[in-house]
Parts: sequence; structure tokens; C-alpha cells
Amino acid sequence: MDALYDIAIIGCGPAGISAAINCKVRNKNIIFLASEFCTAKMYKSPQIFNYLGYPDITGAELRELFIKHAVQAGVEFTKEKISMVMPMGGEFRIAGASDTYRAKAVILAAGITFAKAIKGEAEFLGKGVGYCATCDAPLYKGKTVAVLAYDKEAEEEANFLSEICKKVYFVPLYNDTGALNEKIEVVKNTPVEIIGEDKVMHLVLSNSKIEVDGVFIIKEVASPEQLVPGVEMDGPHIKVNRKMETNIEGLYAAGDCAGKPYQLSKAGGEGQLAALNAIVYIDGKK
Amino acid sequence: MDALYDIAIIGCGPAGISAAINCKVRNKNIIFLASEFCTAKMYKSPQIFNYLGYPDITGAELRELFIKHAVQAGVEFTKEKISMVMPMGGEFRIAGASDTYRAKAVILAAGITFAKAIKGEAEFLGKGVGYCATCDAPLYKGKTVAVLAYDKEAEEEANFLSEICKKVYFVPLYNDTGALNEKIEVVKNTPVEIIGEDKVMHLVLSNSKIEVDGVFIIKEVASPEQLVPGVEMDGPHIKVNRKMETNIEGLYAAGDCAGKPYQLSKAGGEGQLAALNAIVYIDGKK
Repeated sequence: MDALYDIAIIGCGPAGISAAINCKVRNKNIIFLASEFCTAKMYKSPQIFNYLGYPDITGAELRELFIKHAVQAGVEFTKEKISMVMPMGGEFRIAGASDTYRAKAVILAAGITFAKAIKGEAEFLGKGVGYCATCDAPLYKGKTVAVLAYDKEAEEEANFLSEICKKVYFVPLYNDTGALNEKIEVVKNTPVEIIGEDKVMHLVLSNSKIEVDGVFIIKEVASPEQLVPGVEMDGPHIKVNRKMETNIEGLYAAGDCAGKPYQLSKAGGEGQLAALNAIVYIDGKK
Repeated sequence: MDALYDIAIIGCGPAGISAAINCKVRNKNIIFLASEFCTAKMYKSPQIFNYLGYPDITGAELRELFIKHAVQAGVEFTKEKISMVMPMGGEFRIAGASDTYRAKAVILAAGITFAKAIKGEAEFLGKGVGYCATCDAPLYKGKTVAVLAYDKEAEEEANFLSEICKKVYFVPLYNDTGALNEKIEVVKNTPVEIIGEDKVMHLVLSNSKIEVDGVFIIKEVASPEQLVPGVEMDGPHIKVNRKMETNIEGLYAAGDCAGKPYQLSKAGGEGQLAALNAIVYIDGKK
């Protein structure tokens, strides 16, 4: 059986990094599940004036300082794409693309996606719609799939799918599409709806309709409801109280996914709050 | 009539400084009401490992950086001891030792006192008990007062009182008492209770009883209930929601006074949250 960590932290933006540092300072045994490139949004900020302690700094510089702080505190980054978090028997099981993990408490600091769900996305989730090609590809061996690509990360997933599937359509929703396998058909068109009966049958685009067995939607952040079934939301955000507790015991949220404003000091503070309250929680369970 | 500020910020610890910086970045017209020496508690921290962005720093160094950040953002520090905040006709009136102020919204970031109230303190507040000698001294001309001194700041107030009152007793509750006027009688004894009928009559100490007309209690931070009559508390903390709103419209709280844990990232984040939500509030009133 997998090792049981004290706390799993999902997301490596300022909230996740702050949570990880605070756990380390308190000598907790953590798994820090980071995305491929931490906090792309912060990286792109040209100038930041209101992160307390740095009067004028670029997002890229501050990102480096945060990561350096984490490394100096002994935080290890485990690159992993998380597809599901499930409370189970007083602990949590976390499914990633390459491994599964167990933890007594979980801090969700996975940011927020600005990509609106398309029609049919929620309805056909698990019935042909998926967010992780690496996880679900075997189900589509010899079949036809479409990839709705919100960022470059999708290219690698599409290439991987093209080795297994009969046919892969690639619908880029960002600029500068890179190298794709020859077998992949690029469709530059706006996705409108996913339709079917029990399962996905067609992807409708603004001026065409493709017959598919599956649709992979690759965006930086999956919606929290998809990541943690049953988590209570407040609009697009996870509902938390002043302790950063969610409606699920042992599950905390911090940073952009826990509400506006999307700001660095707020995110750092919430990561700290979530960590210290999660520590009180797991210490109380002993 | 006094100028009407957009936002008054009370307290110059990390929460107050963060709030002030965020207001300035948004071009708000603020009054930043700071204590004589900002954030003594932070100044005394020998080593801080968990303020995101600085892996290993002393409290004194980080305090300097925070203040420098505020100055660079154009924040002016108005040294003022605040005795009362009152909501009045859709705005706030703030009484200080040397002036009064008006603001559309108030952010309380005044920290928390660890000094427990002594018996009779709340009962006789305004009936002989006060927190600000500079404010109330004229009422005690030619009379006898006692000063319960929780920190060195009280020495200056006692010296000032000794020029006006017939007799001043000084009860130091800290170490290293400094220079006091000759007229002041130092009483090294533990205060137990303030007693009287309509007004204060005696200060009871562990092995003596002094006849007094007034008792000044000088501690770094007055309790929020005394500062803002009617503010809803949650134990020793001001009750706030996720927007840092209190039960009084337009009044926000952030940092230690708004709840545990007493940590810097949390305080900075809450100051930012309070500021940005206060801005939404005042912009909505236009």
C-alpha cells in the first residue's frame, strides 16, 4: 500500500508553495504535487507592486524567489497531473497520471481556470469526456478522439493519443501551435457542443460536426468539482470558511480556487492558514 | 470640517501596511494611523522561516522591508493613538489623541493585546478608567491617578500626567522601568481590582489599596470592543467573514485582531483582502 502522508498539497502557485513551506517548518510529512510549470499566470505578470516586502518586482522574479524559498525549506516538488481526490475511510486517495497517493489531509491550491465549460462537457464527463489523456488513453485504442487544447501542454497529450487511437483531431484554442505528429488532424474552429446519447458521439464546431468516440479537454486547471466530487462550490470557487476548511472534513482550499481577489499576498496568506489549520486537524486525529 | 478620506487604516503591523499599500496602488485617498513604534512584536522575532519570499530573515529586517515598501508606495504614516471609532451617518469618525478623522471605510489592523483586563476595568471604563492619558488628562487636573503600565510607552504618559495631577502612582507591569518624574510614586505590586461606586474610588493591589480618582491602563493595544463600540467579537478576536467584513458596514478587520494564527503571511494577505474589499464597498457607494 502507498505511504500515508500527513498532508498532500495540490498546486504550486503562491498558495501551494506557502502551504508547503509552513508544513515543512512544522516538520510535517508532505507530498507536494506540482504542475509541469508552476504558476504560469504569475510568470507572465510584468510588474507587481503589492506583494508585501517587494515594492517593485516582475512575476517571473518573484516566482523564482518563492520556488527558491520552498527548496531552501526542504520542499520537494513531485510533478504530477492530478485527476481525482477522494475522501475514503478517514483519509484521502489522490489519483495522478503516473501514481496514486494517500494523505490524512489535502490542501487544494490548484488555481482557477478561466476557460468556460462547453455545452455537454459536464454531462458527458466519464462518458467519453476526460481531462487526462495519459490516464484514459487505453480506453480509446483504435478509436477516434478530439482534443480541445487550451494550452501547449495539450500537444504532448495529443501526440501520445495519436500512437494509440485510430484518429486524433486537435482543436487549438491558443496561439502558436507547435509540432504535432503527422497523423493528427488540426481543426481550427471553435468548439460549440459535445453531443451523444449514453456516450459521446459528436463534437459540434462552429461550422462542422465531427464523429468521435471521446473528447479530451486539456486546460491548465480542471474545475474543482471534477477534481473532488462532492466539494461544495460558491460560484466558480470552492466554498471555504475562515479556516480555509471546505465542506469535506480534512480538505482545505487556498488561493485563487478559494475565491477572489486573485492576488499574491492573499494567496500566500491563505496557503499558510490552510497549512496551519490542516496541521491542527491531523494532530487532533492522533 | 475634517477632510473625508476614502479609507482609514488603523495599525501599522503587516496587515495594516499591506492594506495601505494595496489602497495606494489603487489610488485611494487614505489616512494611515500608525502607532509610535510599528509592530514591536514583529521587531522582536529573532528568525522567521515562513514569510513567503524570504526563506530566513529576522523580524527586525523584515519589518524594515515592509515599512520601506510602504514608503516607496507613497504611504504616509500618521503617528496617532486612536481611542474611538464610531460609525456615523454612513461614514466613520475616528478620535485620536491629537486629532479627529473622517473616512468612508475603516480597516482595523491594530493587533491583539495579550494583557487580560483586570476586574472592574470594563465596568468603570469612562467612569474613571481610561486608555489614553493624553486624551483625558484635563479631567484629572489636581486629582490623584494610577497608571497601570504594560509597556514603556506608559512612562511618557505618566510624566505628562504628573504635570497636571496632584499625585500619580505608577504600577509597572514590565521590566526595565526608565526615567520618571520625581513626583511619580512607583508601586511595584500586582493590580487586582478597580473598585468604586458611580466612579472609580480605589485601586486594589495584591498587598495594598490606593485611593484614586482615575486609573489609566496603558497597553499596546486596546481591546476592539473598547475601540469600536458594538463590534461583534468571536472570543478575543473581531468576527469577520471571508471578505474581512465585520458586523458593521464599512468596517473591516485584518491581521491578529481578526483571528489566529498570528502569522505574517496570513496578516499580509488579510490586509490585502480587507483593502480590496473596502475599495469595492466605497466604489459601490458612489
